[in-house]
Amino acid sequence: MTKKAVILSSGGIDSTTAMAIAGDRGFNIYSLSFRYGQRHSVELECAKKVARYLGAIDHKIVDIDLRRFGGSALTDDIAVPKHESVTQIDQTRIPVTYVPARNTIFLSYAMAWAEVLKAEAIFIGVTAVDYSGYPDCRPQFIEAFQTMANLATKTGVTKQTILTIETPLIQMSKSEIIRIGHGLGVDYSLTISCYDPDSQGRSCGRCDSCLHRKKGFSQAGIPDPTPYIKEPQI
Amino acid sequence: MTKKAVILSSGGIDSTTAMAIAGDRGFNIYSLSFRYGQRHSVELECAKKVARYLGAIDHKIVDIDLRRFGGSALTDDIAVPKHESVTQIDQTRIPVTYVPARNTIFLSYAMAWAEVLKAEAIFIGVTAVDYSGYPDCRPQFIEAFQTMANLATKTGVTKQTILTIETPLIQMSKSEIIRIGHGLGVDYSLTISCYDPDSQGRSCGRCDSCLHRKKGFSQAGIPDPTPYIKEPQI
Repeated sequence: MTKKAVILSSGGIDSTTAMAIAGDRGFNIYSLSFRYGQRHSVELECAKKVARYLGAIDHKIVDIDLRRFGGSALTDDIAVPKHESVTQIDQTRIPVTYVPARNTIFLSYAMAWAEVLKAEAIFIGVTAVDYSGYPDCRPQFIEAFQTMANLATKTGVTKQTILTIETPLIQMSKSEIIRIGHGLGVDYSLTISCYDPDSQGRSCGRCDSCLHRKKGFSQAGIPDPTPYIKEPQI
Repeated sequence: MTKKAVILSSGGIDSTTAMAIAGDRGFNIYSLSFRYGQRHSVELECAKKVARYLGAIDHKIVDIDLRRFGGSALTDDIAVPKHESVTQIDQTRIPVTYVPARNTIFLSYAMAWAEVLKAEAIFIGVTAVDYSGYPDCRPQFIEAFQTMANLATKTGVTKQTILTIETPLIQMSKSEIIRIGHGLGVDYSLTISCYDPDSQGRSCGRCDSCLHRKKGFSQAGIPDPTPYIKEPQI
C-alpha cells in the first residue's frame, strides 16, 4: 500500500521544500493550507500552484479564524516590522509576527485529516531559524505534539498507524533548504515568503521574511526568482 | 490579580458542571464553544444561556469545519445509533460519534485564547464514561496535551504563566456530576445532551447520550428537567 503524508503548506520556501522531500521519500502527498485571516492571501494562490506542481493527490484549504483571539502582527493591526538589513533582526525575542498557538492548531487539523486518511506522517517545514523565535517551532514542541497525537487518535490507540511528525528541515539553514529543494526540482518562482506583498504579489523586500529569503538564495549561489518592490539589502 | 480560565462549553451537563466548578474555585470564566458542522446547533443556544447564567466574562463561538475531513456520525451522514436501553451500548469499541481530533482541535483553540488572556487554566469536562470509548478523553491524552501546550506558547516558554488542563470530572460518574453541579446551583434545564434533538430542541430519548443523561438524573435522585420526544427506557 502506498504511504500517505499530510503536508502543511503555506506556499513558502520551507513548506514547499518539505513537500518535495516527502514526495522524494515515496509518500503520496495530501497538501493542507489555511485561510486564517492573514493579510497576505496571495500565499494561498502560491500553495495551490505548488500542490499542483508537486503532484499532490489532494489539496485542502481550511478556513480558520485566528483573529478571534488577537495577539499577532500577521492577523491584527500591529505593524509588521521593517528592517533595512538582516543584521538588524533581533533573534532573541519572540517576534511580533508570532501567532498564538498557530502551529498547534495547524498540526491538530493535519492530525484529523491524517487519521481519516490513515496517513503515517505529517510534514511541517519548521527550521532552526524559526525556533530561535517561535516557541511552537522547537524540536521539543514537535516531539511533545507527536506523543500527544498518538494518544489522541483511534489509529494511534489501536496501533494500526503510528503517526510521525516529520521536520526534515529542522537542522537546515535557508541556503541549505534552497539547495536541497533545487536539487529535487522545486520551482521557487511559484513560492512567496513576504509578510507584506502588494496586490500584484510582489514582495516588499524589507520584512524579515524577504531578507531571509534573499540571503538564502545568495548564500546557496542560486538566482532568486522573486519580484521585489524594493531589492532587499543583505 | 484575578485568575482566568477558558472553559470548553458544549451546552451539555459535563461542560456546564466543569464551568460551575471553575467559578466555584475563583476563576473568571471565559467560555469557548464551536460551531463545527454538528447536526444539532441547538446546543450552541444552550451554551449561550449557560455562559450568561454562570456569569462568564466572555463567550466566544468559533466556526470550525470538521466536516472537511469526514469520519464521524456527528458531522457526516452516518446514522446516529439508537438504543432502546443503556445496557445495549457497547463500551468496548470506539463510538461512531467520535469526531477525529475534535478535543485536540478544541483544546488548541482554547490554548490560543488562554495565551492571549494570560489564563492559568483550561477546563474540559471529559469523564471516565467518555474515555472508555473516545481516545482523546483519556487522562494520558490530557497530560500529553498539557506538556505540549507549555512548550508551544510564549508564556509557557518564559514561565510567565504555566497552563494547566483541568479535568475536574474525570473520575466522576454522570450521577456524581449532576449531584455536584446541583449543589453548585446549576440549572440543568438550560443544558442539552441529545445527539439528535428535534427543531423545538426536544431530546430524542433514544440516543446513547439521552440514555446516559436520564440514568444519571435517576441515580442522582434529582428530577430530570429534560423534554423528551420519547421517554428514555433505562
